Amino acid sequence: MKSAIKELEEKGKAAKAASKKLAFLSTEIKNKALLNVADALVTKQDEILAANKVDYGEAKASGMNEAMLDRLMLSEDRLESMSQDTRTVAVLPDPVGEIIEMKTLPNGLQIGKKRVPLGVIGAIYESRPNVTIDISSLCLKSGNAVVLRGGREAVNSNTALAKVAQEACYRAGVPQGAIQFIESTERVLVNRMLRMKGIIDLIIPRGGAGLIKLVSENAAMPVVTGGIGVCHTYVDKSADLNKAVAIAYNAKVQRPTVCNALDCLLVHSQVAPNYLPSIAKEWAKAGVEMHCDERALAILKANNVILNEVKNLLVPAEDEDWGKEYLSLKAAIKVVDSLDEALEHIETYGSGHSEAIVTEDYSAAMRFLNEVDAACVYANASTRFTDGAQFGLGAELGISTQKFHARGPMALKELTSYKWIIFGSGQIRP
Amino acid sequence: MKSAIKELEEKGKAAKAASKKLAFLSTEIKNKALLNVADALVTKQDEILAANKVDYGEAKASGMNEAMLDRLMLSEDRLESMSQDTRTVAVLPDPVGEIIEMKTLPNGLQIGKKRVPLGVIGAIYESRPNVTIDISSLCLKSGNAVVLRGGREAVNSNTALAKVAQEACYRAGVPQGAIQFIESTERVLVNRMLRMKGIIDLIIPRGGAGLIKLVSENAAMPVVTGGIGVCHTYVDKSADLNKAVAIAYNAKVQRPTVCNALDCLLVHSQVAPNYLPSIAKEWAKAGVEMHCDERALAILKANNVILNEVKNLLVPAEDEDWGKEYLSLKAAIKVVDSLDEALEHIETYGSGHSEAIVTEDYSAAMRFLNEVDAACVYANASTRFTDGAQFGLGAELGISTQKFHARGPMALKELTSYKWIIFGSGQIRP
Repeated sequence: MKSAIKELEEKGKAAKAASKKLAFLSTEIKNKALLNVADALVTKQDEILAANKVDYGEAKASGMNEAMLDRLMLSEDRLESMSQDTRTVAVLPDPVGEIIEMKTLPNGLQIGKKRVPLGVIGAIYESRPNVTIDISSLCLKSGNAVVLRGGREAVNSNTALAKVAQEACYRAGVPQGAIQFIESTERVLVNRMLRMKGIIDLIIPRGGAGLIKLVSENAAMPVVTGGIGVCHTYVDKSADLNKAVAIAYNAKVQRPTVCNALDCLLVHSQVAPNYLPSIAKEWAKAGVEMHCDERALAILKANNVILNEVKNLLVPAEDEDWGKEYLSLKAAIKVVDSLDEALEHIETYGSGHSEAIVTEDYSAAMRFLNEVDAACVYANASTRFTDGAQFGLGAELGISTQKFHARGPMALKELTSYKWIIFGSGQIRP
Repeated sequence: MKSAIKELEEKGKAAKAASKKLAFLSTEIKNKALLNVADALVTKQDEILAANKVDYGEAKASGMNEAMLDRLMLSEDRLESMSQDTRTVAVLPDPVGEIIEMKTLPNGLQIGKKRVPLGVIGAIYESRPNVTIDISSLCLKSGNAVVLRGGREAVNSNTALAKVAQEACYRAGVPQGAIQFIESTERVLVNRMLRMKGIIDLIIPRGGAGLIKLVSENAAMPVVTGGIGVCHTYVDKSADLNKAVAIAYNAKVQRPTVCNALDCLLVHSQVAPNYLPSIAKEWAKAGVEMHCDERALAILKANNVILNEVKNLLVPAEDEDWGKEYLSLKAAIKVVDSLDEALEHIETYGSGHSEAIVTEDYSAAMRFLNEVDAACVYANASTRFTDGAQFGLGAELGISTQKFHARGPMALKELTSYKWIIFGSGQIRP
């Protein structure tokens, strides 16, 4: 264990040293490295998939649930998709060196902000091995070194991926040490990482609520937390109900294991009798278990047409269903009497991630967009869009649900700071 | 003491409640409130100055040093200047609601970022009572509530100023509770404030190194630290020596008690024999004590012309002079043999605040601006310009020396976050 801690500290110092060079690395070399990584994800897929198979087999044998298994699994398609994401990062503009807000002051000083990397990013993540590549490529492009600490359950996959990324990068001329991967799965290393202030400039936890709590309560350096998404979709009395069915279906079913999936459907009482049977019928086809409040339950039970299809999937909601992140084919349903009630429910139970209204009422849409306090607020669209790639940012490093530094999908710009640069000609302060 | 803690917690909750309304307060009311404050700083100057006189008298009697006494002192001029700064904030654009980076995605989603307040700002500050007004006005304009905790030595001044600000704001229609001032000077309250995560969204310490360390190590919520300025001015071998004298003189003498004042002068060995006697002569007139390395000392002692004027002010530098923030009429002087040596010295001893080069060499200037890792990096200007008002930001809440969220002078924009708003027309994720 001592040697694992020592190794962590050495890797941290090596990352710090590399970060000083990385800050000035040319865009050309960074892009070449990213294209190398993209290629290697395909050419080395056999060894990556073999490593992933070991992780998957062990996880399955240990009784890991389906949601987690889905996150863990790699395939040719998923590697191809990771490769494409890496190419996307390569073609994105380099954020480092960008000069913003340059202006000339009345005294002739020319002053502006120049974007610079943060330094060393620490990433502590669970399960999804693609995070190893996502974070490495975003850190590289933004001129940051990275210390990666993946979950125990994906250690073989992550080790293989990190090795592929390191080799591909260093071959392109990236300074040695820029990508550090901690192979030891000793839990104590996480605590040690969180104390490495001065070495690690920012910690990003990606994983379940337990990990995020641990990191945000114990990190000595800044943290960007997020990833917990208790997402509501509110179907207003003026909703286009066809859109509302399509949106709620998509938000729940298209990929139920992720943080931007729908957890709770709020339905205005005036449209609930029409709407609920329609969405329930669609959800039932996909096997969505519906945790309904009393009024929703009464409406669905009273509707004979769809009763047979959905009845086995209806569950009376309990208190803990409100504010719950299911990460599976389950959803809570609540009937509300007004937009105000919906807003209040979201303020009470939302996690500040992604919230949506479906309405054709202009003022209701504008009020929702204005008043809901969340990273991403939608009118008439699925919350599943909350994603760096979908937002046009390339890949993504995580979704921040905090207000400080960055909010929502984090990508390149969110991994930078700036410095003020001032061109003078002898000015002194009067 | 218990009642003081209870009062703090109640004020925190009241600020939180007010912050929900403040987020939607019209620019018109906020500006009216700021103009009211500006007026009241002048019309109520008698009671403010009377309160300040009590603080000043007690501080002087207790043996407070000149630098601190200068920071504590208010005068008609300083109140007038605070009043002007408040008017400046009133005319600045309202950052809240600003929509940035709005774009239409290929699928028709219209997506952008909308600026929102952070919530409740906690300010813990020492000595300078103008901070009470600076922070209150910036928080108000940016839609944030504020909990103010000033230093014991300025408690009468701060109480008077906070009362003036509260009355002036509430009269304009600002929600009650938006400006909270903690009158008790119990030290335990600082620790309690630092644990109020969920109530206070951001803590800003302004004061000495001890306070900043205490806050950054113990705060449960994000912190913006700064204010410690170990500032270097490097006179390059290609410097215009007249400019270099004017800049170094201004940076040290114009207001020696503040964080952007010069602490260490680095001089290239090729120009040191010409330059050092000139700047030493000027500094000597102002009474600057010069802590010189061996080479600088030798040059100055060998120069007979200025010997009589400066000899009493020459002190051999000791190790602790490098990296020291003097906050007084003292400066360290070191002769270096290259730009590289200057860069290395600054990296080792700088505090990441403000650093300057004086040179006519284009490449040297560009290298310095590019490579020095500090909040504000200058070519051919005095570091004294590092200031929100000087940078055209209105007043300032502090100078951040961290890279996360905000760096350099913090004003309105730095007190906001954003949310993503998405206008859809039924989009679902494929």
